[in-house]
Amino acid sequence: MTFTDRLRSVQEECRSLLCIGLDTDPAKLPVTVMSAADPVVVFNRQVIEATRDLVCAYKLNLAFYEALGERGWHALRETLAAIPPEVITIADGKRGDIGNSSELYARSLITGLRFGASTVHPYMGFDSIEPFLRHPEHGVFVLALTSNPGAKDFQYLTVNGKPLYEQVIARVRKWNTHNNLGLVAGATRPAQLKRIRSLAPGLPLLIPGVGAQGGDLKRAVTYGCDSRGFLGIINAGRSVLYASSGPDFAAAARQAAQTMRDEINRYRVTSV
Amino acid sequence: MTFTDRLRSVQEECRSLLCIGLDTDPAKLPVTVMSAADPVVVFNRQVIEATRDLVCAYKLNLAFYEALGERGWHALRETLAAIPPEVITIADGKRGDIGNSSELYARSLITGLRFGASTVHPYMGFDSIEPFLRHPEHGVFVLALTSNPGAKDFQYLTVNGKPLYEQVIARVRKWNTHNNLGLVAGATRPAQLKRIRSLAPGLPLLIPGVGAQGGDLKRAVTYGCDSRGFLGIINAGRSVLYASSGPDFAAAARQAAQTMRDEINRYRVTSV
Repeated sequence: MTFTDRLRSVQEECRSLLCIGLDTDPAKLPVTVMSAADPVVVFNRQVIEATRDLVCAYKLNLAFYEALGERGWHALRETLAAIPPEVITIADGKRGDIGNSSELYARSLITGLRFGASTVHPYMGFDSIEPFLRHPEHGVFVLALTSNPGAKDFQYLTVNGKPLYEQVIARVRKWNTHNNLGLVAGATRPAQLKRIRSLAPGLPLLIPGVGAQGGDLKRAVTYGCDSRGFLGIINAGRSVLYASSGPDFAAAARQAAQTMRDEINRYRVTSV
Repeated sequence: MTFTDRLRSVQEECRSLLCIGLDTDPAKLPVTVMSAADPVVVFNRQVIEATRDLVCAYKLNLAFYEALGERGWHALRETLAAIPPEVITIADGKRGDIGNSSELYARSLITGLRFGASTVHPYMGFDSIEPFLRHPEHGVFVLALTSNPGAKDFQYLTVNGKPLYEQVIARVRKWNTHNNLGLVAGATRPAQLKRIRSLAPGLPLLIPGVGAQGGDLKRAVTYGCDSRGFLGIINAGRSVLYASSGPDFAAAARQAAQTMRDEINRYRVTSV
């Protein structure tokens, strides 16, 4: 099954577009897990256990794990092992290198760690993405319009009368011969998100930036989904992970995730 | 001392612009190191021992180490420990993420592993680069024009009458308030390399693509150096690492490196 088909079926099955970003910061963990041998793993396991029926995906930002060195690599592996197979796992590493190096990144994330999807940089072009692309069951989210302030530095530059990110979208559509390519499109830019969905009606969109980054949830959902209310993946990080800093963190994460999933589902059937 | 000043002084001291890319592929190692507990580390140590007086830098492509999982992380650390402090170490990871994630990558590579320089993607703009940039002693090489075929997909797109990579260069020059920014400019595109040096006369240029990728060494040197014959870093990978597949691999690597360093030095004083 191609990634896009799988995503649609997972979202249908679990009735959720919510993705939890397991960007676990050891400095923000509740004291109750601090004494564990591997606090990040213990924290992640409990959050996953409490939310696994509420999400279509978990996204792991590799920066948070790399910052821990060897232990981080171990934490990554242990966290992935705790995620049920029916939930999609996204390696948010934003990799991008020449063909033979990209192939090693792909091998590490796809055949090694067995992630279900990855994020990649477009700047180095087709051969930097192709090693990820050739696995039809693996989702490849190419950065189009990101949620951070620096997005304006290059992504909005005008090329042939259109912003650069639209050039990225045009090529991604062309390269999508395996039905496994998607785009990263930040919720912090709702007007552009709407335009991106219109340019790529059938592509999965990974949408970060709601919550701590200030993106509006209603518009993220109504603009980000396809015409049938699927293929938008709404990522929430800090607002779920750190819903409580007390011993009830997992229950609080569940509560925050449930509220958000339900709110998303209400917007899916509302037109703006 | 800022990175750019350090680079000039290292290149002056060691009389070399050569950088060896320690992109060590376990599948290509000589049988004589295969039986070691950690063949990659044993191989790297011997190559470093044999070439340390011939190079201004070693570049480690992180993809090759990540592909080995926890062991790769360990190999990275052990390899760095074998490099003398006067030689520059470059983390070629091509990272780039929103501010708080980029900060973790920077922490891992700069304060954790203590690399002397890193490569980064420009696409996400200033806040994705700033966490690296704020360490004046750390070099930050922003991808401008890369050596791979996919470079043509986006890097050559015309923005205000100029190719996108020139827009990257203009911003990098503006952001270079700490005198530690540089550019990646592939040797496979000599005419553009000449133009890049003219646009950025005082920036360090990391120049991959000679050897296996087909870039011409003479033009890489004459176009890539500043007016005094410094600040170009010529990277060689496979041609040095795998100069021999026999038990004499380290001596052969030394021979290949020495030949290349000398050839580079001849071109430094020749005008094309």
